[in-house]
Amino acid sequence: MRYRTDLAIEYVEDFESAAELSGDDTVRKLIDGAEIEEKTYDEDIKVTRIRITDERGEMFFKKRKGNYITLEVDGIVDEKEGIRERGSKALANELVRLTGEDRNLNVLVTGLGNDKVTPDALGPFTVSKLRVTRHLYTIYNMERDPDISNVSAFVPGVTGTTGIETAELIKRAVEIVKPDVVIVIDSLAARNVSRINTTIQINDTGISPGSGMGNVRKMLDRETLGCKVIAIGVPTVIDAGTLVIDALSKFENDNDAIDSYLNENEFDMVVTSTDIDTVIKDFSDIIANGINIMLHPGIYS
Amino acid sequence: MRYRTDLAIEYVEDFESAAELSGDDTVRKLIDGAEIEEKTYDEDIKVTRIRITDERGEMFFKKRKGNYITLEVDGIVDEKEGIRERGSKALANELVRLTGEDRNLNVLVTGLGNDKVTPDALGPFTVSKLRVTRHLYTIYNMERDPDISNVSAFVPGVTGTTGIETAELIKRAVEIVKPDVVIVIDSLAARNVSRINTTIQINDTGISPGSGMGNVRKMLDRETLGCKVIAIGVPTVIDAGTLVIDALSKFENDNDAIDSYLNENEFDMVVTSTDIDTVIKDFSDIIANGINIMLHPGIYS
Amino acid sequence: MRYRTDLAIEYVEDFESAAELSGDDTVRKLIDGAEIEEKTYDEDIKVTRIRITDERGEMFFKKRKGNYITLEVDGIVDEKEGIRERGSKALANELVRLTGEDRNLNVLVTGLGNDKVTPDALGPFTVSKLRVTRHLYTIYNMERDPDISNVSAFVPGVTGTTGIETAELIKRAVEIVKPDVVIVIDSLAARNVSRINTTIQINDTGISPGSGMGNVRKMLDRETLGCKVIAIGVPTVIDAGTLVIDALSKFENDNDAIDSYLNENEFDMVVTSTDIDTVIKDFSDIIANGINIMLHPGIYS
Amino acid sequence: MRYRTDLAIEYVEDFESAAELSGDDTVRKLIDGAEIEEKTYDEDIKVTRIRITDERGEMFFKKRKGNYITLEVDGIVDEKEGIRERGSKALANELVRLTGEDRNLNVLVTGLGNDKVTPDALGPFTVSKLRVTRHLYTIYNMERDPDISNVSAFVPGVTGTTGIETAELIKRAVEIVKPDVVIVIDSLAARNVSRINTTIQINDTGISPGSGMGNVRKMLDRETLGCKVIAIGVPTVIDAGTLVIDALSKFENDNDAIDSYLNENEFDMVVTSTDIDTVIKDFSDIIANGINIMLHPGIYS
Repeated sequence: MRYRTDLAIEYVEDFESAAELSGDDTVRKLIDGAEIEEKTYDEDIKVTRIRITDERGEMFFKKRKGNYITLEVDGIVDEKEGIRERGSKALANELVRLTGEDRNLNVLVTGLGNDKVTPDALGPFTVSKLRVTRHLYTIYNMERDPDISNVSAFVPGVTGTTGIETAELIKRAVEIVKPDVVIVIDSLAARNVSRINTTIQINDTGISPGSGMGNVRKMLDRETLGCKVIAIGVPTVIDAGTLVIDALSKFENDNDAIDSYLNENEFDMVVTSTDIDTVIKDFSDIIANGINIMLHPGIYS
Repeated sequence: MRYRTDLAIEYVEDFESAAELSGDDTVRKLIDGAEIEEKTYDEDIKVTRIRITDERGEMFFKKRKGNYITLEVDGIVDEKEGIRERGSKALANELVRLTGEDRNLNVLVTGLGNDKVTPDALGPFTVSKLRVTRHLYTIYNMERDPDISNVSAFVPGVTGTTGIETAELIKRAVEIVKPDVVIVIDSLAARNVSRINTTIQINDTGISPGSGMGNVRKMLDRETLGCKVIAIGVPTVIDAGTLVIDALSKFENDNDAIDSYLNENEFDMVVTSTDIDTVIKDFSDIIANGINIMLHPGIYS
Repeated sequence: MRYRTDLAIEYVEDFESAAELSGDDTVRKLIDGAEIEEKTYDEDIKVTRIRITDERGEMFFKKRKGNYITLEVDGIVDEKEGIRERGSKALANELVRLTGEDRNLNVLVTGLGNDKVTPDALGPFTVSKLRVTRHLYTIYNMERDPDISNVSAFVPGVTGTTGIETAELIKRAVEIVKPDVVIVIDSLAARNVSRINTTIQINDTGISPGSGMGNVRKMLDRETLGCKVIAIGVPTVIDAGTLVIDALSKFENDNDAIDSYLNENEFDMVVTSTDIDTVIKDFSDIIANGINIMLHPGIYS
Repeated sequence: MRYRTDLAIEYVEDFESAAELSGDDTVRKLIDGAEIEEKTYDEDIKVTRIRITDERGEMFFKKRKGNYITLEVDGIVDEKEGIRERGSKALANELVRLTGEDRNLNVLVTGLGNDKVTPDALGPFTVSKLRVTRHLYTIYNMERDPDISNVSAFVPGVTGTTGIETAELIKRAVEIVKPDVVIVIDSLAARNVSRINTTIQINDTGISPGSGMGNVRKMLDRETLGCKVIAIGVPTVIDAGTLVIDALSKFENDNDAIDSYLNENEFDMVVTSTDIDTVIKDFSDIIANGINIMLHPGIYS
């Protein structure tokens, strides 16, 4: 049976008991080939850094070698004072830990997803709030400013609407821009609904365009694009099949019977909350501001 | 246990066997207090007219006395040639059967729903495609044209965004316009996923704003608005709890155990398809054109 | 000849020389029946407060008795650091001076304009960024919080799209909500293009829905709505006829000849900048945050 | 002095008298190197085909060798019955005359413009209404259907928002798709306001992305893209400087004085109508349907 989640932390929660996944402020071993570290930024922003270090960790968690960082931000729904600003700062901090102390970078940010389907609109909405500067440098010949990075933005749409493989379009944009880093923003699927308005995942192992909404296609990573790739995602849906498997598993031990039920019925759908427009708006703000702080430290803080 | 569906035809399907609900071209009795009639417009558009005639029918189906018309349009997803035009004509026909032969009416069309949440956007999207004429008559003093009705449009938003009870705003719009008929357009919840890109429901018994997405509030009907109210809806979601109940019922007989599971977990969510933007676009076109044909027969056909 | 501007400050600039309209930090008399005061919040935010005190001022400036406040915010286009936050604080300050020290109010905010025409979209975009709370109090029975006002929001659309007089719909919303204050947000027409990305006008004398884009209809003010009305506007267009009059006046003294040219040609159009989407986005942020600070001082600052 | 118009027909109207530009149903010479032909489809759709045949025509009209077709569709504003359908058929006809009898083509359609600035949104809006099929052939391995072309769609955004040269992105999309034909859709600038809701221009000589809104950059044509390029445009704005020049020329003979006035003042703006959202909606429908009819003749008519 296939549970579906894009969140590395949900794999680890399955593995560790609740007590172990709380507050130990040092790097510790999860299993051979994977380690974990937890910190808090403030009392309401927690970061969990999972690193898969070799093939043993890859095989166990079915995720590629590299870093998986989870930010859990408490209080966004209640519009707690300053929570969005602090969330952006925490995000910027984690991004800088991945890209290094040089803040003056050539960066292409690409927002995946279909902006006409609300839970899939995170990528395009976030990109629309970035401070884009590349044209000022390359077309208008602005003098290079150490406080302002060279930032470009690309929204490739989705293959079902363009007819063109999204990863192919992004490869070509990378050929034009030749960035130091590509940042990819996409909606994700989670297993637990509580993740939908609290969690941001960052990883440096790559992303498959379309995977958040059920379609798996080509990879975007260092191998395919030739530079560092950082993916930022927020869960906005739960896979309908996973919701049903979780329910049935409480009552039925026969996995084959459960699999049959899944195959006989239509579950190529997603489960989302009715206020998903608010989630998309809040997180596109937080992520865009976090990226602006990371790349233009002289202007944003 | 509470299955959730806004489609009268799904209540009847539960009650009748598949064989009985097919093709009998005369009005026949379902139970005391409810009757049914089925017709086809073309080989691919089927209409089912359910009429609840008294309190016995109301108690049995838990729906109010009146007409419930279901149009099943086959081939929209495959963009079958002419299917949308024929769907609009069929819809216009059913609307005229409810409102009468006088096609020159004073009509207020209101589109319910949150246009920023794709599955909830049917109402606003449909209204934006109507031929609105009231200002030409009342402000610009255009001469009354027998082929063009007096049509106004109102999009009240949703209470969670405005802070104002949607039904209250609509009542006030009705006080200004004093229409012969109010047409209300809204997204619905279905039980079977196959309904999501094939089915249009029309009824003349009223509507509760917000019910398609899980919130029940005040009624809009002849009593509250003082004129005929026709509701047009398209299922765009399945209630997550209903999806889970349907799965668990295949494996578990203990309804209390199922109820406990529902109460312990979060199911205040909706299930929808990843191409819901296409469904909303197609059906807002079909419904808007159907209303334009109904109200402005000299201009649209 | 009819110059068209909605900005009171452009009337005064016509009247005063440049030297007089700079920096005098006390209230001084403009003419009998009108006085002026200028202040700066920071070196880059200037406020000019014009007060028309009696009929002589009304006749001279052709504007009604009351307060006209102009905020000139320098540096928004260049995304100067912190300029938007300081602009919001300055706006909140000026609003509080008009409404009084009691920050816990029952307020209806209405955003005028057509959200599908970019220069006319300021009202709807701003309202979508407000913290709306009325339903929490009236439907969900939240306990009254002294730091959170009772705020509702209404977007009536435009008469050309709804067929319904916008002022009528707003009157009815006011009847439901019974606010202490109505805040109305709308796009304005200016005479000088430099106003388009620098200027916010606030007045407490009322507004005519549709006037920003050339249509004049009913007034919304204390008399028609029964409570204080504060209008907030940003110039997003220049009236095409005004642009032409300004050009012709440099070359031609015969006003009748100029009037003839205007009448023979089509000038029912607006002039706007190609980056008007950025202006709308920046100012809807600044205004919404300013209103949030004004009404929910315990949450926003 | 520089009048600004993207419409070839406005150059010719300057040159020919009104009497000569009416109704002669044969190809006739305009000047050496340019010829013209006029036809009507119905009483309310007129087509004018201008062909510049050599360098003499190029020098005279300052436009490149090739075909410039103008469709003038009368009655869109009044929503004349069937006018949009007949406009789409006329457009499809003219497109087929340019591309040849083989209707089963590999076509990339690209919509230029900023979808967040209404008068610049024609390209993106039109593309969203196309029948895209390439993924069905290349990813889902659908069997080749002679009635359905291989159609892909690309919306590159605008350089001011992406930081990336639009023509560069389109070149790359062409490298992926390797189409027989590229169709480019863009907003245009006209000189006469009556053109804004009546005129469609088609040409096969190429297009400069961004030129409709004042920015001139790289060319997209057969040389740069390696295949036939057909541009379809609709005027949605008038250049503000052109509006002023036309007014001043009626009163002033000294062109230098007029040029000085233009240089001293800010005219990097556009003039548009307040119902431009309706124009964009109507023409995106007409053009998208015309392209669908051209490319999928078995499905659309």
